[in-house]
Amino acid sequence: MDKFCFGVDLGGTTVKIGLFSVEGNLQDKWEIPTRTENNGAEILSDIAALIQNKMTEGHLSKEQVTGIGIGVPGPVLNENLVQGCVNLGWGHVRVADELSALTGLKVKAANDANVAALGEQWQGGGKGFQNLVMFTLGTGVGGGIIQDGRIISGANGAAGEIGHMVIADADEVVGTCGCGHRGCLEQVASATGIVKLAEKRMAESSQESVLRTISPLTAKDVLDAAKAGDALAAGVAENMMQYLGKAAAYIACVVNPDIFVIGGGVSRAGEYLIEGIGRYYREFAFHASAETKFALASLGNDAGMIGAAGMVCNL
Amino acid sequence: MDKFCFGVDLGGTTVKIGLFSVEGNLQDKWEIPTRTENNGAEILSDIAALIQNKMTEGHLSKEQVTGIGIGVPGPVLNENLVQGCVNLGWGHVRVADELSALTGLKVKAANDANVAALGEQWQGGGKGFQNLVMFTLGTGVGGGIIQDGRIISGANGAAGEIGHMVIADADEVVGTCGCGHRGCLEQVASATGIVKLAEKRMAESSQESVLRTISPLTAKDVLDAAKAGDALAAGVAENMMQYLGKAAAYIACVVNPDIFVIGGGVSRAGEYLIEGIGRYYREFAFHASAETKFALASLGNDAGMIGAAGMVCNL
Repeated sequence: MDKFCFGVDLGGTTVKIGLFSVEGNLQDKWEIPTRTENNGAEILSDIAALIQNKMTEGHLSKEQVTGIGIGVPGPVLNENLVQGCVNLGWGHVRVADELSALTGLKVKAANDANVAALGEQWQGGGKGFQNLVMFTLGTGVGGGIIQDGRIISGANGAAGEIGHMVIADADEVVGTCGCGHRGCLEQVASATGIVKLAEKRMAESSQESVLRTISPLTAKDVLDAAKAGDALAAGVAENMMQYLGKAAAYIACVVNPDIFVIGGGVSRAGEYLIEGIGRYYREFAFHASAETKFALASLGNDAGMIGAAGMVCNL
Repeated sequence: MDKFCFGVDLGGTTVKIGLFSVEGNLQDKWEIPTRTENNGAEILSDIAALIQNKMTEGHLSKEQVTGIGIGVPGPVLNENLVQGCVNLGWGHVRVADELSALTGLKVKAANDANVAALGEQWQGGGKGFQNLVMFTLGTGVGGGIIQDGRIISGANGAAGEIGHMVIADADEVVGTCGCGHRGCLEQVASATGIVKLAEKRMAESSQESVLRTISPLTAKDVLDAAKAGDALAAGVAENMMQYLGKAAAYIACVVNPDIFVIGGGVSRAGEYLIEGIGRYYREFAFHASAETKFALASLGNDAGMIGAAGMVCNL
């Protein structure tokens, strides 16, 4: 009897649901809107209804489905409890218990950044490695820690919040991080941070730069210019890669992964970024973990859905 | 039928072996010399012989013993393999496999700093918490990471090497760390580092200090003087506590523990240290983990033996 599992990536706008073989092969996927009205009261029943319809259509029995994994945009305790999630309108929600009651299937829930890391470990840029740390460089900087193929979520679901390591000096960054600190990794390595730092350098000097001709400026512009040899842009990029390398070295002293996987929009800078982060990493890394690998994420926006399925493929 | 387990703390000079109930109550303990001659070839058979004698004397059957946990002074892969351990004279040794073959019991091996952390989590300063990080402030700075009651050992057994986070500027420390870097946490927060930094401050200023009258100076002298209000000593202590607090904040962004437990000789400074580290921690910590607790280790030199037993109490 073939066995299957569902992976659900619950976002603030849409819910992505995939049906996978337990070996990780995607069979089919669907998308439904996230109904956040009425404090998101319909979200889990919408998901349950879709899954039940698809099981009926596909003649799948409950015995053939190992479970449902679900990634949620907020901290999750004990693979179950969300204590508040602004994007969904949720207060206290026992996600796994409720979705299990609605479907009669086993359910595990986790934070979306953490399931994306698990997805990259199971099927993506970190495939073949049991211990992985993922950096997601997007509007902010997120992360996920996988050890022995399992998500490390921590005491209150805040494990992997590596964007909030206060790693730069306060006067090196622009303004205050959303978390209230000055100097967070997120302020030097997110798309937003890269643009702000490039603008700061342009304002503080008269150095020529192709960036002065671009408006509005994006992180992609800065990294493209850096790759093309623009000195001001390269300064911003090196600064970012240095802090990412240093943060990775700190993280390796804590959990010593096999591999760091770099994802998010900024990671489209590709090998340039991997080479630079790795170079600074080796400058700061403890000798026993100096050989840790760096790779690009490869699953894009499907990482969360795939990782969610990965949580329940072995149940 | 009462069930028991053995905990072994294998050091470079002596082996400490304890018999525990599976609930963690010490029944008896013994110490034998570590025979490092002949590349440590007799070490495991000495341990096996003692355990078998004690089982015979105590009328313990194999069915009553869940297993043997053993802490080793070096990195351990997969709860089994040591790839070299200078203090023991060992090269490649499959510790768990060999000790299991000798005794007919299940065996798990781990690094000594990691089992000490597990000991403090199971029976010591972190009792009652599933997620713990231990700082051992001794001649060097070691650490251990416990998540969901299990040791995190990492890809090559280097998880918890938090003493080698390069956290201070190179010009703030004295000389080079044993690992080859300048600025390691170990250089500002170990007993050795504290003494060197106090001597550096005395040499670089003419500030009055009771430390100028003490020779040879120890870390205890520095911390006692700091507590008594000596300004130079307090400067050294605050510097150390700031870096420990900052490192703890970084670590919390990675694994988000319930509690940090501080052990090792330097931790005899007691509540003064806990208060100071916690104060700086809260300055740098991400809001979701700002309430993480700090406590002193309570098991002293027995932590390793107890934690080793803790690895196998549930088998």
